[in-house]
Amino acid sequence: MAGPSPVSPLAPKSVPAMPKIAGVKLATAAAGIRYKDRTDVLLVLLDPGTTAAGVFTRSKCPSAPVEWCRDRLKGAKPRALVVNSGNANAFTGKTGRQACQFTAQIAARAIGCKPADIFLASTGVIGEPLKAQAFDGVMDKMVGAARAEPWLDAAKAIMTTDTFPKVATARAKLGNATVTINGMAKGAGMIAPDMATMLSFVFTDAPIGARALQALLSEGVTDTFNAVTIDGDTSTSDTLMMFATGAAAELGAPRIASAGDKRLAAFRKALNAVLADLAEQVARDGEGARKLVEITVEGAVSKPSARRVAMSIANSPLVKTAIAGEDANWGRVVMAVGKAGEPADRDRLSIWFNGIRVAHKGARDPSYDEATVSKAMKSPTIALKVALGLGRGSDRVLTCDLTKEYVAINGDYRS
Amino acid sequence: MAGPSPVSPLAPKSVPAMPKIAGVKLATAAAGIRYKDRTDVLLVLLDPGTTAAGVFTRSKCPSAPVEWCRDRLKGAKPRALVVNSGNANAFTGKTGRQACQFTAQIAARAIGCKPADIFLASTGVIGEPLKAQAFDGVMDKMVGAARAEPWLDAAKAIMTTDTFPKVATARAKLGNATVTINGMAKGAGMIAPDMATMLSFVFTDAPIGARALQALLSEGVTDTFNAVTIDGDTSTSDTLMMFATGAAAELGAPRIASAGDKRLAAFRKALNAVLADLAEQVARDGEGARKLVEITVEGAVSKPSARRVAMSIANSPLVKTAIAGEDANWGRVVMAVGKAGEPADRDRLSIWFNGIRVAHKGARDPSYDEATVSKAMKSPTIALKVALGLGRGSDRVLTCDLTKEYVAINGDYRS
Repeated sequence: MAGPSPVSPLAPKSVPAMPKIAGVKLATAAAGIRYKDRTDVLLVLLDPGTTAAGVFTRSKCPSAPVEWCRDRLKGAKPRALVVNSGNANAFTGKTGRQACQFTAQIAARAIGCKPADIFLASTGVIGEPLKAQAFDGVMDKMVGAARAEPWLDAAKAIMTTDTFPKVATARAKLGNATVTINGMAKGAGMIAPDMATMLSFVFTDAPIGARALQALLSEGVTDTFNAVTIDGDTSTSDTLMMFATGAAAELGAPRIASAGDKRLAAFRKALNAVLADLAEQVARDGEGARKLVEITVEGAVSKPSARRVAMSIANSPLVKTAIAGEDANWGRVVMAVGKAGEPADRDRLSIWFNGIRVAHKGARDPSYDEATVSKAMKSPTIALKVALGLGRGSDRVLTCDLTKEYVAINGDYRS
Repeated sequence: MAGPSPVSPLAPKSVPAMPKIAGVKLATAAAGIRYKDRTDVLLVLLDPGTTAAGVFTRSKCPSAPVEWCRDRLKGAKPRALVVNSGNANAFTGKTGRQACQFTAQIAARAIGCKPADIFLASTGVIGEPLKAQAFDGVMDKMVGAARAEPWLDAAKAIMTTDTFPKVATARAKLGNATVTINGMAKGAGMIAPDMATMLSFVFTDAPIGARALQALLSEGVTDTFNAVTIDGDTSTSDTLMMFATGAAAELGAPRIASAGDKRLAAFRKALNAVLADLAEQVARDGEGARKLVEITVEGAVSKPSARRVAMSIANSPLVKTAIAGEDANWGRVVMAVGKAGEPADRDRLSIWFNGIRVAHKGARDPSYDEATVSKAMKSPTIALKVALGLGRGSDRVLTCDLTKEYVAINGDYRS
C-alpha cells in the first residue's frame, strides 16, 4: 500500500458523538495482518438474544467471509462480529474457508459460544491467504477489553484506503421508548451498486425480530448504499450487516416481529437516515475524490429507468474526469444518457449543473454563460440534474469525480 | 483542447504505403473549425456507381451526421464523404440538422450532384453549434485539388486527441482480379463497444452491391471494432462506413450481389484484417495509454458470455489502473469476473498474465513468483487470460491501461 493519503477535502466537518448501545461492546487490536502501527481487527460483542440481518455483494465470486455470513444468517444467534482490514480473504479457495473456520473458533473459544454464532468480515487485498493465526494472539485480550464506548476506534480499525473513519447515529421513538441506531462503514474504492460499500455495520438496541430486521435493511439499502458508485467496480466482499440487541425492551420498547408494523415508522426513518449518512460518507471518501457529485434524473419513464440513466452518468469516466477538471461538459452527459440504453429523446433533454441550466431541449441553453458556469463548477459539491421530459420517473445517485489521485492510489495499492 | 500529446509509445513502428483506389480521390483543408495550424476537413470524392454500407453508434442520442447518414444509406448513390474534426455536431438540435443540410448543399454544388449523395461525419466537441459556413470557403478548392494519393493526410485531418494517424491496407483476389481495400480511423477517447471507434472509413475498388457490402461490414465489426474498449463510454458519433467504387470490374473482377457468394472468401479475410488492424490501432492510441491489453476469456458457457466477462474486465477501472502500475493484481480480475453477472465459479478460475499462471482453481498459483511476474508486467503489451472452466465459449477483446494522462487529457479537453 502507498503511504497514507491526506484526509479527503470532502470529509464531514464534524464527527458525531457516538452513544452507547446496550448489549454492544467493542474492542480493537493491532494483529499485524498487513499494516504496521495501526489497528486492524475489530471485535464486537453482542449480548444473547441479538438478531441479525445482512445484505451482501451480488458478485459471482464472493469472498469467503461473505459466504460464511450468508450461511449463518438463517436462525442465527449472533454473539460476536470479527472484522479485519488489510486482507479480504477473497479468492483464497479452501484456505479461505479454513481461515474463516479458524477465526470463528478462536473467537468462540474466547467468548464461550459456538463458532456458528460468530459473524466475520474482511477487507483489503484480494487473493492473498489470510493468516488467521494472527487473531489467536489478540482475541482473549480483546474480549476482556471490550467496552461500550469506542465506536470511532472501531470505525478506524476497519479502514483500508479510507482517509477518515465513517460513523453515524440516530435516535427514534419505538413505542414509548427511545432506541438508538449506531452505524459505521468503510469504503473508498471498488464501490458500485449491488452493495455499494465494502463493509458497513449497524447496531441498535431496538427489539426487532430477524425477519423484520432483514426486511428493513433490504429496503433501506436501495436508495442509500445501492445509490452510490465510485468506480463501477463491485467488490467481492461487500457486506452490510445489522444487529439488534433488543435491550431497549427493558425500557419498554415493544417487540417487533414484522417490518409492516406501523410502530416502526420513526425507527425506519432513523435507520434510513443512518444508512444514507454512511453511504454519503463513502462517496465523500471515494479514492482521490475532490468533488461530491449528486446526480438527479427526472422525467424518465420509471424510477428504475431513471436509476440506470443516473448510474450510466455516474460511472462514465469522461463525465467524472470533466467534473474533476471543473468543466460543465454537458456533451459527455448526453453521451452517458445515450449509452444507458434507456428511453431518451435527445431533443427533449435538459441539463443543469448546480442549478444552472446549460442545455435545453436538445441544444445548448440560449442563456448559457461560460463564466457563470465555470464559477459554479469550482464548488466541492456538484449537483448534476438531467430532465428527460418523457415521464414521471426520477431517482438520485451519489458519486465523486475521477482524478489523477484515483489512478495513483490504485496503480500502486499492492506494491 | 490541451496541447498536442506526444505520440503514444504503443504506435505501430511503421506506416504502410497506401495504394491508390480507382474511383476514390481525397483532399484536405484547414477550415478553422476549432484547431489552429492543422487540417480539419476531409473530402473524399467517389466515382458514380459507388455503393455504401454503414454501422453506427447505438446511442439513443446520436449526432446529427449519424442520423443524416442512416437516413441516406438506403438506395444511396454516394458521390462524396465530408468529414470534419474539432466539432462533433452532436446535441446541437435543429441547428445541427441544418448544419448537415448546409454542408451537403455546399459539397453537392461544388461536385455537381444532389445533397442526398453526400455522406457526412463529424468528430470533436459535443454540444457546440457547428459553423458549417466554414466549409463554404474551402469546398470548391478541395474538389479541384482532390487526388488519389493523400491517404495519410486524410487520416491526419480527422484526428482529435489521437496521437498518430491510423491507416491500413490489404489486397485480395476477387475472381481473377486483384482488388484493394484501404481504411482509416480515428479513435482515442469515448471508445466502447456498440461501435468502438468514433470514425472509420474503408474504401475498395471491388464491385460489391450495397446489400452484400452491408452484410460484410456488419459481420466484420463484431470481432474487431466492437471488441475494443478504451473507457466504456459509447460516443454519440460512432461511425464506420465502407464505400465500394466497383472500378475493379474493369480489371475483370466479378460483380458480387450477395455476401454469401463463395468468391468473397479472400476479400472477406482481407476486409476483416483491415478492420482488425484499424481497431487495434485505436486501442494502441487510447487516451493516455501506455500498455496495450489483450483480454482472452476461455471456458465460458458461450461466446457472448465470454465477451461480457472480457468486457467487464476490460472496463474495470481497478484492473486498468493496476496494469498501469505494472501490478499483476489478479484479485481485481476476480472482482471483474464476479461483477459481470455471467456464470462463473470462483473455485475453477485460473488467470494468466503474459503466459504466467498467477491464479489456479480459485487461489494463488502455488508456483507464483512475484519477481518473475513483476518483470513480465513491464512489457508494453499485456496478455491477460482467464479460464472459467465451465464450457467451450471463448472470446477476446482489446483495451489499454488507465493512466493519470487519461485523466489529464479528459480533465481539460474543453478548456
